[in-house]
Amino acid sequence: MNEGNIRFEMVKARHMKRFKCAVEKGEVDKAIVLLCKYINKTSNFFTSSSCSGRILLLGIKGKGKNQAYFHRKWHSKVRFQDVWKAMHEKTSGELWFKMESFIIHIGARTIKDAEKMLAIKNMAGIKRGGLIVLKPGKFMLELIGTEDIAMPVKYDDRVLVNEEFMREAVKAANKKMGENQKRLKMFEKIVRTELKW
Amino acid sequence: MNEGNIRFEMVKARHMKRFKCAVEKGEVDKAIVLLCKYINKTSNFFTSSSCSGRILLLGIKGKGKNQAYFHRKWHSKVRFQDVWKAMHEKTSGELWFKMESFIIHIGARTIKDAEKMLAIKNMAGIKRGGLIVLKPGKFMLELIGTEDIAMPVKYDDRVLVNEEFMREAVKAANKKMGENQKRLKMFEKIVRTELKW
Repeated sequence: MNEGNIRFEMVKARHMKRFKCAVEKGEVDKAIVLLCKYINKTSNFFTSSSCSGRILLLGIKGKGKNQAYFHRKWHSKVRFQDVWKAMHEKTSGELWFKMESFIIHIGARTIKDAEKMLAIKNMAGIKRGGLIVLKPGKFMLELIGTEDIAMPVKYDDRVLVNEEFMREAVKAANKKMGENQKRLKMFEKIVRTELKW
Repeated sequence: MNEGNIRFEMVKARHMKRFKCAVEKGEVDKAIVLLCKYINKTSNFFTSSSCSGRILLLGIKGKGKNQAYFHRKWHSKVRFQDVWKAMHEKTSGELWFKMESFIIHIGARTIKDAEKMLAIKNMAGIKRGGLIVLKPGKFMLELIGTEDIAMPVKYDDRVLVNEEFMREAVKAANKKMGENQKRLKMFEKIVRTELKW
């Protein structure tokens, strides 16, 4: 085996161990677990940390990303009451309401394999992302959906939005979550057609 | 010259012509034009369509991206009055208030050059994007900032948000625009250090 293949096997084995562990602990969200399992069964690809999309109440204390924390996190559509109630719990600093699309990390064995995955990404109409690491045996791709919502909803104890608007915002987030899941399903379908074990 | 070099020179020449034309027409926003000019003077890179970041009122009529249109577009910080006034003009369908980070497209001659640009992206702390086209002589990178805001503000004639909240939303968008511009400046500084003509 050449250097690239040795590295690929090592990196894949490490990620497979982590993935298995995360599945056992229930840390991999359901909407993405079968897709990841399928990709991991191919000989030339593996998945790394991935998320099927989420709706968040994200707290931000002070400056810098280290200061951000999840006040709430949902990997599915949400009910307005749950968001509204959580917004009225004690928080400090800024609180943002966000809907984030899926983000999938995939490792490819060779640059040809990476090219193949980029083609699948394009076929599925996934507009964001690309190849982010280029090393023999470790060609890492990041694929990201484009649906998103992000707005400040509370500063310290002061809720900025009224109930009527927040209902519309949650509705919009759920709609985008639906579109995000459709795109993810389309990607999974094309992966299953284009990549064989 | 090998096939890759021939393609690179052809693609670069085409993009340089377009870029020159866009600069003359004032279509390239100021915050990015010097960066693009610098990159275009290097022998192994060129820029393709790029944007330094923007604040938008985006209209959406019906379904599908073809139905989206710019009701307003600013490449700088905005005044609340300008946004509020524009929101109250006649629009139909959905109107979204958005702040989008910079997006820069860069072509590299070889995969080694593409790797160099990915390293610069990482040095500048740019988290999104990567290599999106892999062809000998045409290695296209897309670099995207992470600051963003997106929220529905009006459905048909019905403005969803009150003035107080919208003031906060504009303030947040301007703050993110500032952070976005800082990141872009940092990227430009590193480009000027790492890439020599």
